[in-house]
Amino acid sequence: MNISIVAGGAGFIGSNLVVELLKKTDHSVVVVDNLSRGKINYLDKCIKKNNGRIQIINANLADKNQTLEAFRTASNQGVVVDVWHLAANSDILAGISNPEIDLSDTFMTTFTILQAMRAIGIGVLHFASSSAIYGDMGDREIGESSGPLLPISNYGAMKLASEAIISAAAELHIKRANIFRFPNVVGTPATHGVILDFIRKLKTNSKKLDVLGDGNQQKPYLHINDLVSAMLHVSSCNINEKVFPVNVGPNDNGVSVRFIADSVVRSVSPNASICFGESSKGWIGDVPQFRYSVNRLKECGWAPRFTSQQAVLTAIDEIAFQEGERTNCNER
Amino acid sequence: MNISIVAGGAGFIGSNLVVELLKKTDHSVVVVDNLSRGKINYLDKCIKKNNGRIQIINANLADKNQTLEAFRTASNQGVVVDVWHLAANSDILAGISNPEIDLSDTFMTTFTILQAMRAIGIGVLHFASSSAIYGDMGDREIGESSGPLLPISNYGAMKLASEAIISAAAELHIKRANIFRFPNVVGTPATHGVILDFIRKLKTNSKKLDVLGDGNQQKPYLHINDLVSAMLHVSSCNINEKVFPVNVGPNDNGVSVRFIADSVVRSVSPNASICFGESSKGWIGDVPQFRYSVNRLKECGWAPRFTSQQAVLTAIDEIAFQEGERTNCNER
Repeated sequence: MNISIVAGGAGFIGSNLVVELLKKTDHSVVVVDNLSRGKINYLDKCIKKNNGRIQIINANLADKNQTLEAFRTASNQGVVVDVWHLAANSDILAGISNPEIDLSDTFMTTFTILQAMRAIGIGVLHFASSSAIYGDMGDREIGESSGPLLPISNYGAMKLASEAIISAAAELHIKRANIFRFPNVVGTPATHGVILDFIRKLKTNSKKLDVLGDGNQQKPYLHINDLVSAMLHVSSCNINEKVFPVNVGPNDNGVSVRFIADSVVRSVSPNASICFGESSKGWIGDVPQFRYSVNRLKECGWAPRFTSQQAVLTAIDEIAFQEGERTNCNER
Repeated sequence: MNISIVAGGAGFIGSNLVVELLKKTDHSVVVVDNLSRGKINYLDKCIKKNNGRIQIINANLADKNQTLEAFRTASNQGVVVDVWHLAANSDILAGISNPEIDLSDTFMTTFTILQAMRAIGIGVLHFASSSAIYGDMGDREIGESSGPLLPISNYGAMKLASEAIISAAAELHIKRANIFRFPNVVGTPATHGVILDFIRKLKTNSKKLDVLGDGNQQKPYLHINDLVSAMLHVSSCNINEKVFPVNVGPNDNGVSVRFIADSVVRSVSPNASICFGESSKGWIGDVPQFRYSVNRLKECGWAPRFTSQQAVLTAIDEIAFQEGERTNCNER
C-alpha cells in the first residue's frame, strides 16, 4: 500500500486534500496534526467512508522526536511515497505580536519534517507556501522568479525560510519538492480568513460591519476545491526541476475587500451598514494588493474552475452554512 | 557615547570591523560573541589601543535570555545606535551533515537579535548575508532582485531565512536594515576558507596539494579591508529603502580555484604538485561559479581597492604569515 503523510491534515486545506487523496483506492493516508487549529471532526466523513485507509496521529510537528516517531509509524505500514506539508500558523496577526508562533508552527515544522524525511528516506515533498513570501510588490505582476523577496509579516518570512531549507535539502537528500505558493484560499471548513471574520462580526452585530482597511485591498482568491485540484495535478506532472516553486491562483486579478464585504452583507445581513477604515492595509503585515502570474501553472496544463469572484461567492454560501446562517448548502 | 553592538565581533570579519568602528573617537563598541569560532586575541591590539571604548560580552546569541541580557548591558552604557550582526556558522560542510548547527548559529542568532532589538528599541541593523542565498544561478549575472532564490546549502538557506525575518521585522519595529550579501571574503585572521585550507594542507604535506573539485570553480573574492570599507560606506549613506539588500563584491568575475591553488603553491611550497578532483563542485552545497552585479554598490558611490586577483594574492601573503610560513608580512 502506498502511503501519503499529510502534515496538518486535520486543518482547512489538509482535510480537503485528504478526501481527494483517498479517492485513489490503492492509497492510504497518515495525518499528522497536533489539533491546535485542525479538528478530528473535519475528517469524520472521510474516516467513516475510508476506514482502514486513514490514520490520524496526534503529534507536535515542531518537535523533532514526535515527528520522527509519527513518520516511523507511517513508514512501518507501507511505502511512504510523499509528504504533504500543510502545517502552519494561519493566524498572521498572532505571529506579528509573538514571532515565536510562526517560528515554531510554520518554520520548525518544516525543519523537523525535513529531518524526519532524511532519517527515514522519504524523497518527495509537497509544501504549502504562500504569496506572502513576495512581500509588497505593488502592482507588479508576480512570477515565480520575481524579487527581491522582502516579506512584511513573520508568516511570510517563515514560509520563505521554509522554502529556503527545502531547497537546500533537495541538494542533499530530497528527490523532488513542489513549492505551492498559495493565494488567499476560501471554502470550508473555514477556520480563519476574511469571509469567516465578516460573518462572525455580523452574527454579533447584524446592523453594522466594521472592515479593517479602506476596502480597496485587491487580491486573487482561489476556492479550496480548485487549490486541491491544482496541487494534485502538479504532483502528478512530469517536471524536470528538482525544486519547483509554482504560483497557484485564479486567472484574474482578484476581487476587492469591498466586494467581499458587500457580498457577505447581501448574503447574511442585508440591512447592515458597512464601515471601512482609512488605511490601505487591513493590518500590519497585510499586503494591500497583489497580482499573480499563473503562467507556470497553465504550462503544467491546469486551469481553475472558478474565478476569484465565483470562489468568494461560493465560499460565502458555504461558510454561512457552516456558521448556522443557512439551513442548506449545495454539497460540493 | 554612541554604541555599536557587534554580534560575532570576535570573528574574522567582526574583529576587522571593530577596528574601523573604533576609529570614530566618539564611538564605543560592545562585542557579543560566544567565542566558539572567534577569539579574544583577535581583538587584543584593539583593546590595548582603545581601552574603555570596547567591551566584550561572552554570550550565546542563539539564546534569547543571554542575548537580551547582553544587549541590555550595552544599552545601559549609552545610546545603542546600531547592531552589526556577523555571528554565524562559517563551516558550510558542518552545516550540511548537521543542519542544527546552521539553525542555531546562523538563523536563531538572527531571530533572538531581532527580539532583543525590539525589546530594547534599537532601530538599525546591518546584517552579513551571503551570495549563497542565490543558490546555483549558473553563469547569469546576479543582481539583488534575481530569483528564484533556491539556496543549495543550509548555510545559504539560513542566511535567506534570516533576511526574511529581518524584512518582516522592518514592517514592525526595525527602522533600517542593510543586508550585505558577501562574496568570498579573504584576509586575516583567517579561520576558514580555501586559502587557509591549502596552506594547512601544504604544511602537512609539502609535496602535494589535493584540491576539492576540478579547479574550475570561479568566484569573486573580496579582501576583508574592502569588505569593511563597503559596509561602513553603505551604513553612512542616505538610502530611502527601509530594507536594503546589496551585493558586495569586486568589479570582476572572480578567479578560479586553480588560480588560487597555483598561487598558494608558488608562494609557500613551490615544488608541490597539485591534484584536482573530477567534480565541478568542490563539495555538496558548493556553488561552482557565480557572477555578481555590483551596480547597486557602485550607485552608492563605493569602489573596491582590489580586484579578485589582488585580494587573493594579498590574502595568501597575510595568511601564510599568520600560519608561520612567513617571517614578515606588510602590516595593513
